[in-house]
Amino acid sequence: MKQKARVAIVGYGTIGKRAADAISVQDDMEVAGIIKRNLTHELYSAVQKGYPLFALSQKSESAFVNEGFTVEGYLHSLLQQADIAVIATPDGSASEYIDICRSLNLPVIIQGGEGHELAGISFNSEANYSEALGKKAVRVVSCNTTALTRALYPLDTEFGIKKVRATLIRRAADPNDIKTGPINALVPETEIPSHHGPDVNTIIPHLDITTTAIKASTTLMHLHLVNVELSKTASEKEVTDLLKNRPRIRMVSNKQKIRSTAEIMEFARDMGRPRGDMWENVIWEDSIHINGKELNFFEAVHQESIVIPENVDAIRSMLGMTNGPDSITKTNIAMGINR
Amino acid sequence: MKQKARVAIVGYGTIGKRAADAISVQDDMEVAGIIKRNLTHELYSAVQKGYPLFALSQKSESAFVNEGFTVEGYLHSLLQQADIAVIATPDGSASEYIDICRSLNLPVIIQGGEGHELAGISFNSEANYSEALGKKAVRVVSCNTTALTRALYPLDTEFGIKKVRATLIRRAADPNDIKTGPINALVPETEIPSHHGPDVNTIIPHLDITTTAIKASTTLMHLHLVNVELSKTASEKEVTDLLKNRPRIRMVSNKQKIRSTAEIMEFARDMGRPRGDMWENVIWEDSIHINGKELNFFEAVHQESIVIPENVDAIRSMLGMTNGPDSITKTNIAMGINR
Repeated sequence: MKQKARVAIVGYGTIGKRAADAISVQDDMEVAGIIKRNLTHELYSAVQKGYPLFALSQKSESAFVNEGFTVEGYLHSLLQQADIAVIATPDGSASEYIDICRSLNLPVIIQGGEGHELAGISFNSEANYSEALGKKAVRVVSCNTTALTRALYPLDTEFGIKKVRATLIRRAADPNDIKTGPINALVPETEIPSHHGPDVNTIIPHLDITTTAIKASTTLMHLHLVNVELSKTASEKEVTDLLKNRPRIRMVSNKQKIRSTAEIMEFARDMGRPRGDMWENVIWEDSIHINGKELNFFEAVHQESIVIPENVDAIRSMLGMTNGPDSITKTNIAMGINR
Repeated sequence: MKQKARVAIVGYGTIGKRAADAISVQDDMEVAGIIKRNLTHELYSAVQKGYPLFALSQKSESAFVNEGFTVEGYLHSLLQQADIAVIATPDGSASEYIDICRSLNLPVIIQGGEGHELAGISFNSEANYSEALGKKAVRVVSCNTTALTRALYPLDTEFGIKKVRATLIRRAADPNDIKTGPINALVPETEIPSHHGPDVNTIIPHLDITTTAIKASTTLMHLHLVNVELSKTASEKEVTDLLKNRPRIRMVSNKQKIRSTAEIMEFARDMGRPRGDMWENVIWEDSIHINGKELNFFEAVHQESIVIPENVDAIRSMLGMTNGPDSITKTNIAMGINR
């Protein structure tokens, strides 16, 4: 491996552009290049940041060149100069890229919109970093699954979990999406349980977890109501302290006038986070409630950015660069994830 | 005056916090302190940025101190160590602060939510910078009026304007506001003309301008359809070139996949703007349409941030620190407003 791990970013949308930025602030990896299908405003800032631009087709290349962009080559030339690829193309489109990476013997990370079986390993930094060590294909699970895993894994380790029943109020579309609805409805996902519970099981197989989901007319964040039956008795303080000290969980409270996803996003903007991103699970400390062995709490999930630190850690695991706790700390410090 | 102009920020909400940040990146002014009524999450980042915190009352002071904040004093002690005050308290609450500043002979800037008569001078950087020179009270006009003035002043200067008819589709609430509606309606402002046209006349008195306004269920930006009857014939290219070269107008186009206010906000986030702010008028180049002497175009207005550079320039004008074009350039460079 070269001095820094060189990462190819395939797909430069919501996840791809954030992954590129998070990678470029680490001291042990760098962006080898980005690839994008269509001309969008995102390319202007990408090029300003110095990411080499590659094109998927001659048609894209012409569109980019006509707009004054320099195109360094096509997909194969990007992949050939990379140590690993992060695929962040639209949901369900990764399989062709995985095949190409496999044919080049290039490690590849896919996102949670793809099925578990495509990679065979689903990833969360705290829960199973070491499972991805040296692997050729790894899937970073979706935003909702990442958040559930971050909160449930320590609870299970510390107190034991008998069962989890979680309700996910999902954002309808991302903030920049002007084509997706609903704009004025609540949409129950009538498949019960929703796919999120089984998805947590790809990382914590023994967990008894069932999830249900409702789409709401908002673009900012998802909101989870998590109901957990613990194996051992725990106090609200013990649960709060445990969760508060996780590396990617942030506690907020009504006292700070953070009563909504809107105010969390405002908080992230005020902190100067790039794009106003909130990489942590955000748990309302006020909502942590214990009744016997039954725990309830609310958490908010920034769907656009929460999986980004996990993508960075997955790179280190797959390339054998360091261990899990070190990678989490390195990633957090470089990105500015702290309390 | 001390080496740097010391600015008191009275009110630390949407405008106050942004004004503080914009002031603190200028090389000729600094934040003397901020004052806030209630404890909110905004104080955490304010204190991290090093802004001295003052309290309006003993009650606020206790709330702040209980949360671990250091309080430097009350309003009077803040104002006594400042060269100028920026009042950014809720709309309609500025008059008591103006009176206090007047009693201390302290120059004071108020915002567009207050009436023109309170200050006597309404301000826009390009249109009437020199009118505020040495004045003791100046009003920076509102977001909508700022945007209209920025676009209309150069058109009037270059081609002459016979009349303006503008339709303002207004955002219902700011992104962090969880109490204001409508969440699902269009609300015509049945006062015709709306107050915005007369407000432009506080800066360009001779302009024949009428505005109408509709509130829509969105938080991101306002959208203006501006219809202008010019005195002289002008081509679309002449209008585009004129507007494109204004210091605080940004052209976008559908070709860049910027077709909506949502995508403008995404563009601002991608540019790495603090809080994802868009300080410029954003005009769709595609929409600039000339029919004889009649001009139409669409522009989007980021209500949270567009008046911030004008607040910075107003400080320089009132304190006689430099001339208008120099101030605009200085402010733009320090904030990173450019093309």
